[in-house]
Amino acid sequence: MEIPNGQLVQIGVIHSPYKDKSEAPFQGRFKQDTSTIEVFEEYESALKDVETCSHLMILYWQDKGDRKKLQAKTPWGEEIHGVFATRSPNRPNPVAVCVVDLQKRDGRLLTVNSMDAVDGSPLIDIKPYSAKVDCIPDAVVGWNKEEKF
Amino acid sequence: MEIPNGQLVQIGVIHSPYKDKSEAPFQGRFKQDTSTIEVFEEYESALKDVETCSHLMILYWQDKGDRKKLQAKTPWGEEIHGVFATRSPNRPNPVAVCVVDLQKRDGRLLTVNSMDAVDGSPLIDIKPYSAKVDCIPDAVVGWNKEEKF
Repeated sequence: MEIPNGQLVQIGVIHSPYKDKSEAPFQGRFKQDTSTIEVFEEYESALKDVETCSHLMILYWQDKGDRKKLQAKTPWGEEIHGVFATRSPNRPNPVAVCVVDLQKRDGRLLTVNSMDAVDGSPLIDIKPYSAKVDCIPDAVVGWNKEEKF
Repeated sequence: MEIPNGQLVQIGVIHSPYKDKSEAPFQGRFKQDTSTIEVFEEYESALKDVETCSHLMILYWQDKGDRKKLQAKTPWGEEIHGVFATRSPNRPNPVAVCVVDLQKRDGRLLTVNSMDAVDGSPLIDIKPYSAKVDCIPDAVVGWNKEEKF
């Protein structure tokens, strides 16, 4: 069922070195490529003080995701998992969350490392990453025994 | 501008002890209250193997958020910040991200700790939390000098 008033607006666009899904890394944190996050003019005032954050949580829309898919294989094996146990872009609401290092803010352009988005992905939200609430060093993904992500 | 096909669907509902915004903690991680995440029947198969995860990233819709607000005060001081430098529910796309401890899965009910959602919040997505890609122990939110979150 649709969420009332749940239509997402595009607040910007992600410029990355990855031209399609096959080029994008499964997890950006394992790569150090640089991407640029462009925030549209009408949202620029919402960036005040973002430059004081070392890391950001970037939410973007995985517009190539299959919204009907509920189970999927991953790059880490042949087993089928529920999509809520994976980070697959195929899920009912393909909102990706990616933690990036902020290198520089220049007006409404943010230079970041470790972004996994395909070039041109619509930006949904930017949040400050807080070590106090977002960092769980001992978290375990049990099905992923080899701990590849 | 609207994201094409960017209408969010509700995949479940969050049952929490917080009846309204005034009761909900600013960050759930500082509280140990128990909440129940109910996934709707049609999405149950997407939960396969979720029970092997110690921690989950929960995305939910902050339906009381003001989508027009671009700057805001926080509970931590009188200064005005851009909403993209805060975790305020008031933002263009009020998609909240909350990291929770999974205590138990019972069919399509997940018992979790450290959830900050108001009771009845629409569930958008569930992702496995990966210490390898999501945990940045040395991240800093510079404007928040007293490090209250």
